[in-house]
Amino acid sequence: MIDGTRLTKSAIRWGMVGGGKGSQIGYVHRSAALRDGYFDLIAGAFDLDPQRGRDFGAELGLDPDRCYADHNAMFAAESARPDGIRCVTIATPNNTHYPIARAALQAGIHVICEKPLTFTTAEALDLQAIAGERGLVVGVAYGYSGHQMIEEAARLVADGALGDIRIVNLQFAHGFHSAAAELDSPAARWRVDPAFAGPSYVLGDLATHPLYISQVICPHLKIRRLLCTRQSFVASRAPLEDNATVLMEYDSGAVGTCWTSAVNAGAMHSQKVRVVGSRGSVEWWDEHPNQLRLEIQGEPARLLDRGMAYLHPQALADDRIGAGHPEGLFDAWANLHYRFALAIEAHEDGVPSRVAGLRYPGIDAGVEGVRWVETCVRSADAGGVWVDYL
Amino acid sequence: MIDGTRLTKSAIRWGMVGGGKGSQIGYVHRSAALRDGYFDLIAGAFDLDPQRGRDFGAELGLDPDRCYADHNAMFAAESARPDGIRCVTIATPNNTHYPIARAALQAGIHVICEKPLTFTTAEALDLQAIAGERGLVVGVAYGYSGHQMIEEAARLVADGALGDIRIVNLQFAHGFHSAAAELDSPAARWRVDPAFAGPSYVLGDLATHPLYISQVICPHLKIRRLLCTRQSFVASRAPLEDNATVLMEYDSGAVGTCWTSAVNAGAMHSQKVRVVGSRGSVEWWDEHPNQLRLEIQGEPARLLDRGMAYLHPQALADDRIGAGHPEGLFDAWANLHYRFALAIEAHEDGVPSRVAGLRYPGIDAGVEGVRWVETCVRSADAGGVWVDYL
Amino acid sequence: MIDGTRLTKSAIRWGMVGGGKGSQIGYVHRSAALRDGYFDLIAGAFDLDPQRGRDFGAELGLDPDRCYADHNAMFAAESARPDGIRCVTIATPNNTHYPIARAALQAGIHVICEKPLTFTTAEALDLQAIAGERGLVVGVAYGYSGHQMIEEAARLVADGALGDIRIVNLQFAHGFHSAAAELDSPAARWRVDPAFAGPSYVLGDLATHPLYISQVICPHLKIRRLLCTRQSFVASRAPLEDNATVLMEYDSGAVGTCWTSAVNAGAMHSQKVRVVGSRGSVEWWDEHPNQLRLEIQGEPARLLDRGMAYLHPQALADDRIGAGHPEGLFDAWANLHYRFALAIEAHEDGVPSRVAGLRYPGIDAGVEGVRWVETCVRSADAGGVWVDYL
Amino acid sequence: MIDGTRLTKSAIRWGMVGGGKGSQIGYVHRSAALRDGYFDLIAGAFDLDPQRGRDFGAELGLDPDRCYADHNAMFAAESARPDGIRCVTIATPNNTHYPIARAALQAGIHVICEKPLTFTTAEALDLQAIAGERGLVVGVAYGYSGHQMIEEAARLVADGALGDIRIVNLQFAHGFHSAAAELDSPAARWRVDPAFAGPSYVLGDLATHPLYISQVICPHLKIRRLLCTRQSFVASRAPLEDNATVLMEYDSGAVGTCWTSAVNAGAMHSQKVRVVGSRGSVEWWDEHPNQLRLEIQGEPARLLDRGMAYLHPQALADDRIGAGHPEGLFDAWANLHYRFALAIEAHEDGVPSRVAGLRYPGIDAGVEGVRWVETCVRSADAGGVWVDYL
Ligand SMILES: NC(=O)c1ccc[n+]([C@@H]2O[C@H](COP(=O)([O-])OP(=O)(O)OC[C@H]3O[C@@H](n4cnc5c(N)ncnc54)[C@H](O)[C@@H]3O)[C@@H](O)[C@H]2O)c1
Ligand SMILES: NC(=O)c1ccc[n+]([C@@H]2O[C@H](COP(=O)([O-])OP(=O)(O)OC[C@H]3O[C@@H](n4cnc5c(N)ncnc54)[C@H](O)[C@@H]3O)[C@@H](O)[C@H]2O)c1
Ligand SMILES: NC(=O)c1ccc[n+]([C@@H]2O[C@H](COP(=O)([O-])OP(=O)(O)OC[C@H]3O[C@@H](n4cnc5c(N)ncnc54)[C@H](O)[C@@H]3O)[C@@H](O)[C@H]2O)c1
Ligand SMILES: NC(=O)c1ccc[n+]([C@@H]2O[C@H](COP(=O)([O-])OP(=O)(O)OC[C@H]3O[C@@H](n4cnc5c(N)ncnc54)[C@H](O)[C@@H]3O)[C@@H](O)[C@H]2O)c1
Repeated sequence: MIDGTRLTKSAIRWGMVGGGKGSQIGYVHRSAALRDGYFDLIAGAFDLDPQRGRDFGAELGLDPDRCYADHNAMFAAESARPDGIRCVTIATPNNTHYPIARAALQAGIHVICEKPLTFTTAEALDLQAIAGERGLVVGVAYGYSGHQMIEEAARLVADGALGDIRIVNLQFAHGFHSAAAELDSPAARWRVDPAFAGPSYVLGDLATHPLYISQVICPHLKIRRLLCTRQSFVASRAPLEDNATVLMEYDSGAVGTCWTSAVNAGAMHSQKVRVVGSRGSVEWWDEHPNQLRLEIQGEPARLLDRGMAYLHPQALADDRIGAGHPEGLFDAWANLHYRFALAIEAHEDGVPSRVAGLRYPGIDAGVEGVRWVETCVRSADAGGVWVDYL
Repeated sequence: MIDGTRLTKSAIRWGMVGGGKGSQIGYVHRSAALRDGYFDLIAGAFDLDPQRGRDFGAELGLDPDRCYADHNAMFAAESARPDGIRCVTIATPNNTHYPIARAALQAGIHVICEKPLTFTTAEALDLQAIAGERGLVVGVAYGYSGHQMIEEAARLVADGALGDIRIVNLQFAHGFHSAAAELDSPAARWRVDPAFAGPSYVLGDLATHPLYISQVICPHLKIRRLLCTRQSFVASRAPLEDNATVLMEYDSGAVGTCWTSAVNAGAMHSQKVRVVGSRGSVEWWDEHPNQLRLEIQGEPARLLDRGMAYLHPQALADDRIGAGHPEGLFDAWANLHYRFALAIEAHEDGVPSRVAGLRYPGIDAGVEGVRWVETCVRSADAGGVWVDYL
Repeated sequence: MIDGTRLTKSAIRWGMVGGGKGSQIGYVHRSAALRDGYFDLIAGAFDLDPQRGRDFGAELGLDPDRCYADHNAMFAAESARPDGIRCVTIATPNNTHYPIARAALQAGIHVICEKPLTFTTAEALDLQAIAGERGLVVGVAYGYSGHQMIEEAARLVADGALGDIRIVNLQFAHGFHSAAAELDSPAARWRVDPAFAGPSYVLGDLATHPLYISQVICPHLKIRRLLCTRQSFVASRAPLEDNATVLMEYDSGAVGTCWTSAVNAGAMHSQKVRVVGSRGSVEWWDEHPNQLRLEIQGEPARLLDRGMAYLHPQALADDRIGAGHPEGLFDAWANLHYRFALAIEAHEDGVPSRVAGLRYPGIDAGVEGVRWVETCVRSADAGGVWVDYL
Repeated sequence: MIDGTRLTKSAIRWGMVGGGKGSQIGYVHRSAALRDGYFDLIAGAFDLDPQRGRDFGAELGLDPDRCYADHNAMFAAESARPDGIRCVTIATPNNTHYPIARAALQAGIHVICEKPLTFTTAEALDLQAIAGERGLVVGVAYGYSGHQMIEEAARLVADGALGDIRIVNLQFAHGFHSAAAELDSPAARWRVDPAFAGPSYVLGDLATHPLYISQVICPHLKIRRLLCTRQSFVASRAPLEDNATVLMEYDSGAVGTCWTSAVNAGAMHSQKVRVVGSRGSVEWWDEHPNQLRLEIQGEPARLLDRGMAYLHPQALADDRIGAGHPEGLFDAWANLHYRFALAIEAHEDGVPSRVAGLRYPGIDAGVEGVRWVETCVRSADAGGVWVDYL
């Protein structure tokens, strides 16, 4: 049970790149990091427009001297100070993730980065290498994975409650971009421009979330080959897709599917993960994240609720409030951020092994997401054919 | 509103092949056909075991002389009588559908046949040809399609309420055969034996249902090519699949998916059809068939309820009871059967055009289901590749 | 498992009073009674307007000679014939139930009567006395109680799965008469006219249904005292209520509530029964009658599905089709009607004890419903005070 | 849209009484108040045990000198400092609310207090008088009311979308204390001891929440009289109730019910508010607080989702993240706390009128909750009779 007392020795001096005024995800990062004093926001390059960024930093109560024009200025200045930032969060459009993250790591600063981590697997592996050499943490913002019922699902699979896993069905299919919203909304515009978004839209923007969740729940499943088709129902989005379907085959013989869409008209998120085993299934849905549906063949379906004593201790550990009370996305993100803090402290203490068992989306998850998107795009662009997953 | 008064001139003298004691689907046929006096059960070859069949006929109150040892005997005797059966329902394992239906048609008897209609498209086309020549009706038991909210969905699509159709997602994925139930259950056994079941298990047994529903809702969509993968998670079922996924591309540029399974452990039916257009979506679920979910992008999701005055007249026409009261599968089947009766009467009167606008699963739907399964199997057996849909 | 073979020796010759063309509930009665050949419709006085009644009988295929001008004519003629009706169903407005049922019983004819059985407890007891003397069955049309998951709930309570019963919450609260529908609809009009409806509208019309269900589930609970308030939100309905709430105290110390309404605007039926014990609760909802929610304190909530092998044998006995397939209200009514037939046959055979354990809404349930409404009205009209339940 | 920039001039120096280590609700208060820098936690008397309280304050990063042995010491010391706390939150058992709140107000400190505010209406009115005289804010922790869909419901009612309000049904009925949990759990123990809990258990602990929500949604409804029955199903809890039902009549002719329970075995919260008007209804459920069900008679039911552009501007104003992403209880509490901060600043600036239109649970809501509980208890203890609401 979390009660607001910090598990680390000190608050981590922390900065942000992006996430400025009116941005979609900046506030979520700040809310998660500042919760319970794990991070302390002291520097930022919040905006493409330096003045807007500085004004916003002031509104957030930052020292104006530490509101920088851009990330390079920030990393230079901060890494020169004894009280400089130890960690930076990158909440900018996709194209900038790689250069900014690289610069941060090279300045010796831990990174929390938005997904998709980079455009290419090669870039992601590069970040992985640098982080490894320098003993730095790279956390990736797969925020939904902080929901505790996903931990419960993972434990059920690990305990064999579902039997052998046979089928993994993933979905993240909203309808918010059924029409060409990008004509009016700048935040939507970059998402459908390859220069900013990278080689994909919904595969990278949406599908990587349930993909990571499936990896948390079924860490033993390794994709052997996959096939992807993608469409641009709003034609001006081509070559970027606004709808895609992926078929996956795992080493174990299990199979998977993933449907991701921004044109599932009228739907809210529809992020759902269903894992089917030889004995039973679990199903989780991000719009009602406090419940997990457990179905054992031949038994009544069970609805598990967050916070209940019948859950695995690990799924209860992050509880912030009693059962019945709903926790939301902010709480899930906060769960990840305290683990990021624990990991950073362990790395700084030179004992990364201390967090060996700690579940958080790190650099490996980041690499994997990029590799998966890259492979999907390769398949789709070849006409929707099977490609080996390397 | 249906009130029990028959819309045809007379009850149709009717017989059954199969559907005997302990069979899974026989009672549903009888319940549907006998409702409101559209059909009159007077003959049968109910069972592989002639004596069991005769006993069962007696229990049902039939004249023992008209309980036959097999269908050949029945067709011979009945077609020789002035008061012989005019229609026969075939509710036997799949392998027998073709020969029995063929024999019935050749004896001048209308047919209501279980799905899948035949093993091969060639066989289905043969039945289509004979029926066409002789002016006979062939109805196919896509029972779910009788639910009225499917009619409502079709009207919404026809009226353009959803905009251009982009995505069709089909699912029929239960978990009842997660383990090798066929070892104990004879009714399950034939389903996984190609000699009886045909070239597929779940594709033919389950997926043809939502496929037909999708054709009712979106009659304008023509499949251009498809890709199928299938698995036998219970290995002894090979080559028949207990799980399959199909990707479809339509002429219009729309895309579709279909997941069908008998190993979706813990799930009940999970038969769901979701049709997504540029403006909105409809979703229907066979376990709660009295509701239809209509989601228009940017508006609150709407739950439409059977029997309500806001529905299209056609979706209200078959109402048997006021809104709020649930109708079930038997009522949906009965809706189809009175249309079968109307069609039979129109054909016998020599004016088939009288039922031109009447929606029921006829021989064309039967052919289409077989062709689809055949194409899926061809794709799967070639390694899960795209094959043109001819 | 029901398969259409009749469990009685012969079809019961059967007639109807009311339930004519355009009536709300007539078709449900016919559908239920004719299912599987338990009853054989051979006579009727279907309509206030004799000619309309006769025409309707003809449409239903009846012998015109047995379509009578009124129930007196029918009972006289039929009881004089050797092949006269053995049972009559009364589906007329409430005010006529008592005289018609009395006349039928005095003519030696078994009765299936709509609810509320009579206006007063004295009248109901009179029918009980006559039926008792003459060894006749009186069945009451509490149709929802035929749903099998109610049987399951009863078994769970009987087995102690819920512990000691503490709370019973009943609800039947639709919104269809939020406005003064009776101005346009004749079927609604009589419901709000005391001369036809009796001393109450929604208490008798709606609340008696979940009340009876609660008695099926918790037969051991006896009401000690109750308190009722009722309102006429559409003022012209006064003194009849379109909304009422009842508080109940049982002998055992358990308590109950009942909310019933015709002005619960926008709601469909909302007929829900929740029974809470010291260990757990069950909840059933008539709009999705194939499920039962079982909640044991400290365990995940369970969703039980009709037709599953984990149910009590008694809750499976009336299954007509496999699990997953929804049954509806017609099937529930049919379940009651075959029990009515079994009861009638046992009484005619002079061995009523043969159906001692058979659960169906008989004369006692009919009396109890009337007594409850009468007591509620007494409480409400005294200003909403506690009155002893005698 | 909230993005973490504070709307007030400065963070409010803030202290806590109670809410110590292991307490149920302390963390929720801190999380809500510290969000976005509206409050700054600098002092506390967190625990009955001074040492535990001091240790906990240290864990929270407080200056040890400002971790006090009790609230009196804190108010004395803090009100003597120029940088003393301006506001205190009281998160202790019910019996202490009145003396602590009184002492705080007399020390010139704004108060945020847990519910029920006091034991008696007289006490609550006393606090109201002192706060009024001194121009201090008293906020009451009706945390659920911060959920934005409640604001939407209020707007729908105000706009007349539901017509005239006829029925208000309230419910907060969990099952966590179905057995005598208080034997093992200290946090449960005081709740069933009148010395600590006051004159009621579930009425004050639970029912006051939906009561306040109903007042937010229907501010025009004034209770005229009410009737309450209460039970102690775990007998050792007497005279405190673990289950109660309340009937209410409003001045307008509308009626209400409230069911509250801690023995609704197997249920989670079940906090539901349904408001029924002559045209339609809204229903809100705290376990899925991001949705609101809107049902207009004769139209499909609508599911409104938090964050969607079709909502009233006021219901969107507090959005912290896009639609589809669930917000939880912490976010709702934070919504209230920033309004508390705005109110405090307005009062300190001497212009309370600045927050005249701001919706938050203030002293009037606190008084009303106590009065309602007191009246309920009076009714129940007189045998469940109608009592005027004064
Ligand atoms: N994890 C999630 O659930 C989630 C949700 C939404 C967005 N995202 C990701 O977050 C990232 C940002 O998305 P968004 O929707 O918030 O975008 P946005 O367009 O709403 O905001 C981007 C912000 O970054 C600033 N910015 C852009 N380039 C910058 C630069 N070079 N230096 C400094 N600031 C810069 C902009 O001024 C703006 O404030 C994307 O990678 C996106 O994929 C993740
Ligand atoms: N439409 C649906 O929803 C649905 C549901 C279930 C089954 N089905 C289909 O119905 C058919 C029957 O399936 P089932 O599950 O009822 O099978 P089953 O094994 O339960 O019953 C088959 C019945 O047919 C009889 N039979 C077999 N061969 C016969 C023959 N040559 N002549 C006469 N009788 C014969 C058997 O004795 C038995 O009574 C299959 O084609 C199946 O695909 C359709
Ligand atoms: N069990 C249920 O779920 C349910 C549902 C609806 C109605 N009901 C009950 O069924 C009864 C009928 O209700 P309804 O809604 O069908 O009414 P309705 O007004 O729709 O139909 C009544 C029918 O009875 C006929 N009739 C009236 N008086 C007659 C008489 N003296 N002799 C012969 N026929 C006569 C009318 O002509 C009409 O055909 C009522 O008691 C009602 O409470 C029960
Ligand atoms: N608003 C809500 O949703 C909600 C939920 C839970 C509790 N509450 C209310 O919050 C209050 C506290 O409940 P809880 O469940 O957290 O109780 P708890 O027993 O879990 O915790 C009470 C805390 O107060 C401390 N305390 C007790 N007396 C004190 C005193 N005189 N001085 C300083 N500290 C003292 C205790 O040491 C403990 O830390 C109650 O009034 C309760 O009704 C409200």
